[in-house]
Amino acid sequence: MLAKPVITLTTDFGDRDSFVGVMKGVILQTNPDATIVDISHGIGSHDIREAAFTIGMSYAYFPTNTIHMVVVDPGVGSERRPIIVRTDHYAFVGPDNGVFSYIYSLKHESLQVIHITAEHYFISAKGSTFHARDIFAPTAAYLSRGINIRNFGERINDYHKIPLPFPQKTADNRIRGEVILIDRFGNTITNIKGSHIRAVCRGAPDCPLQILIKDMRVTILDYYAQAADKGLYAVVNSSGYLELFVFRGNAAFEHTISIGDEVEISVPL
Amino acid sequence: MLAKPVITLTTDFGDRDSFVGVMKGVILQTNPDATIVDISHGIGSHDIREAAFTIGMSYAYFPTNTIHMVVVDPGVGSERRPIIVRTDHYAFVGPDNGVFSYIYSLKHESLQVIHITAEHYFISAKGSTFHARDIFAPTAAYLSRGINIRNFGERINDYHKIPLPFPQKTADNRIRGEVILIDRFGNTITNIKGSHIRAVCRGAPDCPLQILIKDMRVTILDYYAQAADKGLYAVVNSSGYLELFVFRGNAAFEHTISIGDEVEISVPL
Amino acid sequence: MLAKPVITLTTDFGDRDSFVGVMKGVILQTNPDATIVDISHGIGSHDIREAAFTIGMSYAYFPTNTIHMVVVDPGVGSERRPIIVRTDHYAFVGPDNGVFSYIYSLKHESLQVIHITAEHYFISAKGSTFHARDIFAPTAAYLSRGINIRNFGERINDYHKIPLPFPQKTADNRIRGEVILIDRFGNTITNIKGSHIRAVCRGAPDCPLQILIKDMRVTILDYYAQAADKGLYAVVNSSGYLELFVFRGNAAFEHTISIGDEVEISVPL
Repeated sequence: MLAKPVITLTTDFGDRDSFVGVMKGVILQTNPDATIVDISHGIGSHDIREAAFTIGMSYAYFPTNTIHMVVVDPGVGSERRPIIVRTDHYAFVGPDNGVFSYIYSLKHESLQVIHITAEHYFISAKGSTFHARDIFAPTAAYLSRGINIRNFGERINDYHKIPLPFPQKTADNRIRGEVILIDRFGNTITNIKGSHIRAVCRGAPDCPLQILIKDMRVTILDYYAQAADKGLYAVVNSSGYLELFVFRGNAAFEHTISIGDEVEISVPL
Repeated sequence: MLAKPVITLTTDFGDRDSFVGVMKGVILQTNPDATIVDISHGIGSHDIREAAFTIGMSYAYFPTNTIHMVVVDPGVGSERRPIIVRTDHYAFVGPDNGVFSYIYSLKHESLQVIHITAEHYFISAKGSTFHARDIFAPTAAYLSRGINIRNFGERINDYHKIPLPFPQKTADNRIRGEVILIDRFGNTITNIKGSHIRAVCRGAPDCPLQILIKDMRVTILDYYAQAADKGLYAVVNSSGYLELFVFRGNAAFEHTISIGDEVEISVPL
Repeated sequence: MLAKPVITLTTDFGDRDSFVGVMKGVILQTNPDATIVDISHGIGSHDIREAAFTIGMSYAYFPTNTIHMVVVDPGVGSERRPIIVRTDHYAFVGPDNGVFSYIYSLKHESLQVIHITAEHYFISAKGSTFHARDIFAPTAAYLSRGINIRNFGERINDYHKIPLPFPQKTADNRIRGEVILIDRFGNTITNIKGSHIRAVCRGAPDCPLQILIKDMRVTILDYYAQAADKGLYAVVNSSGYLELFVFRGNAAFEHTISIGDEVEISVPL
């Protein structure tokens, strides 16, 4: 048994119904010592892509060996497989529908994906329409008790990946990305990272970086409160991504920015 | 003291205010070892019926001896009694206004209801308008420390029940029920159980089950993803109840289905 | 290390994004034994005043030595200081922008405010735009392990206070206050306390108290369920404050009452 095991939950279940509480009850039945942490239950309904980004940007802030359960599962009950993903420092449990695509895209020393088939760990295998409760929660709980992942099923290599947008270098001085998430403040997060900016700037001390979204030129600042007015500004946010914001305002709403909108960074040649 | 006691919370307090946090603080003051799990704080304001169904469908997924606190309490401060309900495997704490009616409707080896009068356990008895904090939270916390229920007050038999709709057999081949809950996906849950369907089908292997709601005929499937199109379909859901759904849609909204709407299952004679 | 340390969270982060979960991950990395309780993540965006009242009305219901983290922080990343506030029985961690003004307004045997500068406790000090994760969460976690507050920085006396509205005695028989909070039921909470009412009534047994808001006369009751009709009534609520309510209704909406609206209590001379 792990010391003080942590299990996190990321779902599209919302917080009005009893789904999440019931999952926690099932986990505690199998491992009363588990500390359960909600990452989000507000993922857009059936939005596998948002779930993939959300867990990708969050998982590494948890203690080593944390078990991250992600259940955004439009195909529940169908033939898509339940899986465990094991990386060097974390385990992930959920459906094989691409919710772990961001995790797969990272470089790991080791990456193992297990098809969960050991039904004796399940609560009720037959005809279940609530795999979060009946398959994923007990799997996470047994994992947190130290059961080896190989006890849950066979290793697979044909796990499902969804295409995640990564920025494209379109010229030596130019990278094109897009908006991937909008948070509850209306901040719009792009897939362009601080490292992309440094690559375009080539270490120039006062880099004349140009940021363009929807024909708007955006100035990059060091932090939110630096904004001089209510205009659209950019920062490299706390997750390391370029983010467009309006200070004490709602950038997405005020500038009608949506997920998928193109963002370009460049320096003049 | 119980090993790793679990206390669950089901209320209509919402999650914007500090009510729920304060209740947890009070519980932890009395029992720092309690694991507290939210089942839902999104019960409709003062909706005793919804609370009764929610706890009825959730309580059994928790470890034995879990203490379920349910506070949906339009009459707080008035003369309605605070009670403990003890069944074979669980305890419940809340107001005597019918929130535990579903629990009463189940067959138990033993069922005891205690009128909580032992004010020395309360935080502040006089003129309180927040019984969740002042009476129910400390009661749950002391219960979780192993205090015997008889220490909290006298046993009563005239506890309050609200009428919960149960399905009616209207003919040998026909059962009439109704919609009792609508979840956040718009799935509409009826009070007809899988066992009712088996009763109507009389074990026929390919039972020609007919489901009728608001003059719509609905086909029953094994799981959500089996739906061939965006029409209205039915499944026996993860709680064992007949549920009407639109695959990746909102059944209640798209078909204007409301709580209380009649649902009939039958087989042709 | 404290026995069973409790850390509470009060923020304007909402519950859709992963901000809160990530903060909890960071806390658990440093202190796996911490019990983390959400007070509210629904504080109005950047509403320092609401945060100040919310923590002021909640903190004392938690076990002694609970560490209360409050992060409503419009100036994140700017020069406002991160602080620890230590009172006789509790510690508070957050930005020095006035969120602890209510705490400062109370009489304490001792009150110490520390400017957090010990960057070796931080996750990443440089250019962070997420102090909740990078500064406040690790500070709270180390505090909960028993690290002395003086290890985090120097004591300061020029900490920031925001003006909080306190009731004014406008005549011997008259006190003027205002609406300071509206809860999710539409109950409107004023800054007039039970003690103010007793002062105006001068211990008269059947005090002919008059309550006036927006030219409406309001009758005071002992508890909500005492209301005879759907009119506007008042109670001294569970936090000890005068509160205007409509029984099973929404007082703020039905009577267009807003935060800041004046409320006067008086007795005829």
